[in-house]
Amino acid sequence: MRRTIDWVDGAVEIIDQVALPGEYRTLRLASVDELIDAIRRLAVRGAPALGGAGALGTALAAFAHDDPDAVRADAARLADARPTAVNLSWGVARALARLGEGPDAVLAEALALLDEDERLNHDASARAAELILGICARRPLRLLTHCNAGRLATVGWGTALGVVWHLHAAGHVEYVLADETRPLLQGARLTAWELAAAGVPHRVLPDSAAAAAMARGMVDCVVVGADRIAVNGDVANKIGTYGLALAAARHELPFVVVAPSSTVDPELPSGESIVIEERAAEELTTFSGIPVAPPGTPVFNPAFDVTPADLVTAVVTEKGPLGR
Amino acid sequence: MRRTIDWVDGAVEIIDQVALPGEYRTLRLASVDELIDAIRRLAVRGAPALGGAGALGTALAAFAHDDPDAVRADAARLADARPTAVNLSWGVARALARLGEGPDAVLAEALALLDEDERLNHDASARAAELILGICARRPLRLLTHCNAGRLATVGWGTALGVVWHLHAAGHVEYVLADETRPLLQGARLTAWELAAAGVPHRVLPDSAAAAAMARGMVDCVVVGADRIAVNGDVANKIGTYGLALAAARHELPFVVVAPSSTVDPELPSGESIVIEERAAEELTTFSGIPVAPPGTPVFNPAFDVTPADLVTAVVTEKGPLGR
Repeated sequence: MRRTIDWVDGAVEIIDQVALPGEYRTLRLASVDELIDAIRRLAVRGAPALGGAGALGTALAAFAHDDPDAVRADAARLADARPTAVNLSWGVARALARLGEGPDAVLAEALALLDEDERLNHDASARAAELILGICARRPLRLLTHCNAGRLATVGWGTALGVVWHLHAAGHVEYVLADETRPLLQGARLTAWELAAAGVPHRVLPDSAAAAAMARGMVDCVVVGADRIAVNGDVANKIGTYGLALAAARHELPFVVVAPSSTVDPELPSGESIVIEERAAEELTTFSGIPVAPPGTPVFNPAFDVTPADLVTAVVTEKGPLGR
Repeated sequence: MRRTIDWVDGAVEIIDQVALPGEYRTLRLASVDELIDAIRRLAVRGAPALGGAGALGTALAAFAHDDPDAVRADAARLADARPTAVNLSWGVARALARLGEGPDAVLAEALALLDEDERLNHDASARAAELILGICARRPLRLLTHCNAGRLATVGWGTALGVVWHLHAAGHVEYVLADETRPLLQGARLTAWELAAAGVPHRVLPDSAAAAAMARGMVDCVVVGADRIAVNGDVANKIGTYGLALAAARHELPFVVVAPSSTVDPELPSGESIVIEERAAEELTTFSGIPVAPPGTPVFNPAFDVTPADLVTAVVTEKGPLGR
């Protein structure tokens, strides 16, 4: 499968990200309920990919119901499947706007959105790569990233890892340090898998070792994706991003956020009002069903945090650095 | 078993910390080689407990060999079992100094060291509790800790968790946030187990969520132990401590280190020259034998980091805050 998420013979197909890196397999999702379940289980995740999921899921609903209200009800449930990434509801709204023209028009809009996602991420990451080459003198570069902001987090190409693909193609990458990203290990499972597939030298580290890596002079630049960006430049991204930004600031390293402009929420003046999803306790207290904490241990397990704009060197979209 | 490590009928007995929280069991270690293996596997860990292990292991060697050189060779191997905690070699040296008086004297010195460890940690944590009550106005307190600096990290009582025991007994603890502490989850496995046993309300969080917890106003004070402290106040402690200290500084929260004075290395002017142990890749790339990263993924897996003195509000030993 060329894309992380696509429309194949009347259904949504995704690369099953829960099975990676152990197994590469695709899942066929023929109903909105199956898609919502896949989104909640993070079988498909990453803000830009969720935009595609929202749009394709709306097409599924449009083909499933003759009654427009039933389509809208499905679309509303889909948009609420995860609360933080603005792209999900944005993808739903965009496809739903064509409902009056019939299900084929909804699908056409969704497919246009998929094409656009690949193109915009390619452009955003090219602009970010250019910016980083301008800021960082060292060649080749040692980059640090968090979670997975690659092909698997988008319809294709990637955002933060998109930057790596551009820089690597130009011979400018010495290595990438990939935070493992607790609790679901998207860095160890998915980013390492993508970097290995692309032949980019890399190492996985505990999230908590990133500051030590910077202190040892092992990092030239931090580059991450985003799940929602406020108008003032505050960035919601995978839990741990804020701590990384604090460490980067201490070591005077550039901290660059790369995302398609659909990640910017024009309704959101600052990061303070971003709804942060809290995930299940089991993500922390068990591993593959094996307990790693005493039974019933309560947790604090937010999926995202907010990095204040003052810690971000640049938010780069396909239009270039935000606010410049 | 009342203590984490003790001398029972001619051998060293430890609480097996690898089996917790699933199973509470003790291990009997009758030779220096068995003890070294237990130290390397982290079945016994924590700087103060390693001091006890060094001393008791030297007694094992003293009873095993008539030739003093053979005892010294065993002691040297034991002191090198883990490189960062100064307490291990300190415990070895202290017991070995009595070798001329025969094995019973070596054992007597080791047992004195165990008694002393409990007493000194009790005192150090009482002084730290007093300091924290003086600095933090809020009652009851919300504390955040990292790794395990409790009874299980010491012969008995604990250092950072010793503070919790004092404050909890006085009714001053609202809750403790316990970082899970990747990769070996000493926070989720051991600290949560100790807090639950003591009836202290607590939550486990990913290491990477600590900064977000501070940003949300959920923390009044950070309190941690130490593996080695330089004369200038730089602190080597479990990987992730440095990032925590950066986040505490951003949120103007006190960052308090508690340790017996044996953790201060008088030979070490600053943290720069502390040898940091690198652990096996498998700690990050597998869980219970299940791969969580592509096979052969290289890692950066330092066991400790160094927190510069400027980020530490106070290092408190049994003698009170360092340098005051």
